[in-house]
Amino acid sequence: MQMLNIIEKKRDGLPLDADEIRFFIREYTAGAIPDYQAAALLMAITLNGMTRAETVQLTLAMAQSGDMLDLSDISEYAVDKHSSGGVGDKTTLIVLPLVASFGLPIAKMSGRGLGFGGGTVDKLESIRGFAVNLSESEFRRIARETGMVLAGQSKSLAPADGLLYALRDVTGTVPSQPLIASSIMSKKLAAGANGIVLDVKLGCGAFMKTLESARDLARVMVQIGVDAGRDMAALLSDMNQPLGVAVGNALEVAEAVETLQGGGPADLRAHCIEVAAHMLRLAGRGRRYVDLAENRELLAQQLDAGAGMQPLLRMMAAQGGDVTQIQDASRLPRAKLQEEFTARETGAVAAIYADKVGWAALALGAGRATKTDTIDHAVGIEVHVNVGDQVAAGDRLMTVHANDEGKLAAALTLLAEALAYSAEPVARLPLFHGVVDGADFTTSPATIV
Amino acid sequence: MQMLNIIEKKRDGLPLDADEIRFFIREYTAGAIPDYQAAALLMAITLNGMTRAETVQLTLAMAQSGDMLDLSDISEYAVDKHSSGGVGDKTTLIVLPLVASFGLPIAKMSGRGLGFGGGTVDKLESIRGFAVNLSESEFRRIARETGMVLAGQSKSLAPADGLLYALRDVTGTVPSQPLIASSIMSKKLAAGANGIVLDVKLGCGAFMKTLESARDLARVMVQIGVDAGRDMAALLSDMNQPLGVAVGNALEVAEAVETLQGGGPADLRAHCIEVAAHMLRLAGRGRRYVDLAENRELLAQQLDAGAGMQPLLRMMAAQGGDVTQIQDASRLPRAKLQEEFTARETGAVAAIYADKVGWAALALGAGRATKTDTIDHAVGIEVHVNVGDQVAAGDRLMTVHANDEGKLAAALTLLAEALAYSAEPVARLPLFHGVVDGADFTTSPATIV
Repeated sequence: MQMLNIIEKKRDGLPLDADEIRFFIREYTAGAIPDYQAAALLMAITLNGMTRAETVQLTLAMAQSGDMLDLSDISEYAVDKHSSGGVGDKTTLIVLPLVASFGLPIAKMSGRGLGFGGGTVDKLESIRGFAVNLSESEFRRIARETGMVLAGQSKSLAPADGLLYALRDVTGTVPSQPLIASSIMSKKLAAGANGIVLDVKLGCGAFMKTLESARDLARVMVQIGVDAGRDMAALLSDMNQPLGVAVGNALEVAEAVETLQGGGPADLRAHCIEVAAHMLRLAGRGRRYVDLAENRELLAQQLDAGAGMQPLLRMMAAQGGDVTQIQDASRLPRAKLQEEFTARETGAVAAIYADKVGWAALALGAGRATKTDTIDHAVGIEVHVNVGDQVAAGDRLMTVHANDEGKLAAALTLLAEALAYSAEPVARLPLFHGVVDGADFTTSPATIV
Repeated sequence: MQMLNIIEKKRDGLPLDADEIRFFIREYTAGAIPDYQAAALLMAITLNGMTRAETVQLTLAMAQSGDMLDLSDISEYAVDKHSSGGVGDKTTLIVLPLVASFGLPIAKMSGRGLGFGGGTVDKLESIRGFAVNLSESEFRRIARETGMVLAGQSKSLAPADGLLYALRDVTGTVPSQPLIASSIMSKKLAAGANGIVLDVKLGCGAFMKTLESARDLARVMVQIGVDAGRDMAALLSDMNQPLGVAVGNALEVAEAVETLQGGGPADLRAHCIEVAAHMLRLAGRGRRYVDLAENRELLAQQLDAGAGMQPLLRMMAAQGGDVTQIQDASRLPRAKLQEEFTARETGAVAAIYADKVGWAALALGAGRATKTDTIDHAVGIEVHVNVGDQVAAGDRLMTVHANDEGKLAAALTLLAEALAYSAEPVARLPLFHGVVDGADFTTSPATIV
């Protein structure tokens, strides 16, 4: 088999077969295919697309390029979630302990953030001593002993994805639906989950700007999971305004704890309940937690009872984190400067552009512009209003937490562009735009491995 | 300027501006852009195309990536020809001395062949001692002293083309019209010609299979030349059957000499007269050689008088070649084995597939399968019939010249597939399918450099 023929086939719009896709992933991971040939193929895929069968095969080949975790010794049914990333998205920090509080073990590997926010792992590193780099045996031991573990992604998990992502990043081939879907799903499949809930964000603060593109991506990912024998659901969630109030690592940890104790912003609480309700539904496998409305009730009760705090604290202790920082948020890192951002106009808040809030947080140091940047866990932005709220000129809209006067000024300049006002009343934004349910998809026996 | 932005722009179907194209060519030639980024851009160009303005800018940038020859000390008007390559195409060996015999100096750099035939330089190397690797000063001295020089292409001429071609060859980006056109024309522009006649082949033995694709390519190349201030003409010539009788390096040299002495196959003679008539027309610049019919007359007389032999012999002597091999073709390299290939059927010759004859010649050793292969100058095939001829079963159709029994057998197997017969009469193939004349194109001032 020749890589050149594979490139030519895709260039000419013909579908690649499973052997060709496996050859490419295996040989590229082994360093036997040069980057320039891989780059040509990636561009041809970006422009000519891939069929469903090709995308499934690509994902499976990438998942199988490294270790395939088997979590059956930890849980007879492992459930996972994935968020496509958004501004103020601390959902994982709330949903996982909440689900664990139902006696469902959680053993998750999570990525770091690049671009305008930290990833879950970065947020957890706000807590002194918390270790995210675990060996596989530590990971398994903590999961078995505490019922919950959350670690950084192992390098041996889907290594082809890491290599291909680095190449896509410098060759203009990031925005390809089959490449995005296979990148996300290869890691999820390798991480050993039986059921996966995808939180696919859409809007100005998300990678997918439109409902149509988000639904397309969700369908492809759900199909991949179904074809690989996993239970799947994808929620299409709104990311036009930041989720919750807090944007920034330690601020978000504090807000997650508040929510786990029955408080927190209403939108964040509702969002987490919805994601968790689907995780319970998948984990119940048609015998328990069948009814989503009942699940929401159970989850709301569990939040009000603070039931998720125990799994979180147990995990903290097991992974070396300072549990006093969870028990008392004032012990979390706090920035030196707090500056209020007030309304310039009186009227309805017509927009709080999540992307601009995200770039402002990045300017403060809350995220990474490049992979080697270090994160300032203390800085960030609190957004006290939602789209649709009535405000008067001079009202406090946001609080900016900074450690540097220059960065504060840069963030305030960016935030001035983040708001729009309207003299007319403005409707509130929905939390969700729909669900793509794996139960509605059929398995294609030809593509299962 | 960032290479990534240039890739993304072309990926998204937007035209690149002149600065972006120059940046890419300059930095890639300097080794400052990695192959994987260049490969991604080449694939995006292959799939999304380039506008006329982009193609012109690309060609000029490639031409200017190395030395730009100035031939004004050799001739006040330098005329050049380029063939897109075909089976049995020894036109350059005939046309250049013939044009030189009109007192028009010829100083040409020519490429080597890859694929099923040798290039002009390879054919000339059939002659003992003939030196094709000349320094620029030798090249100029011979041109001035003898009125004709033909050398291998200097590495300092359009080096970007050499680098890009090598990358295209391994990334599936060879068949892109703007990349083909810019590759050919960058070398022609850098080689200093004022007037250029392109011989664009079409048919089964050519890169362009259809009249439409050949005409499109011809138009793009003529437009590039016009925009760069050159006089241009492109002939669309048939390459469905081999040109002339001889296919193979020394065999073709012998046939070229025969043609320069007033003999040779009728189709080859007519083809050469047509190409030369357009070269005379361009060189006359609207004051002399205006009338193509008159030019053909003049050229036929000059061929019958053997006038082209003197420039050829002078060049041979100046470049160290054994002139006795030109004066007596029996002194040229001759293969050990001669095998006749006879007609299997009685009827009209319906097809002599040029590509299959070409692959048979390659199997004998007449061309290079890879760049490092050496050529056997003696081997080849004589094709004694043309499409439309009536033959009887057992008639001699071809003579195969081989130096190896195994290669002979392989060639005969390929040749058995090269012929088709018809019980009905079959029309002769045309030599030409049209002309694209630069005089019909307007110069776009915005794109001239």
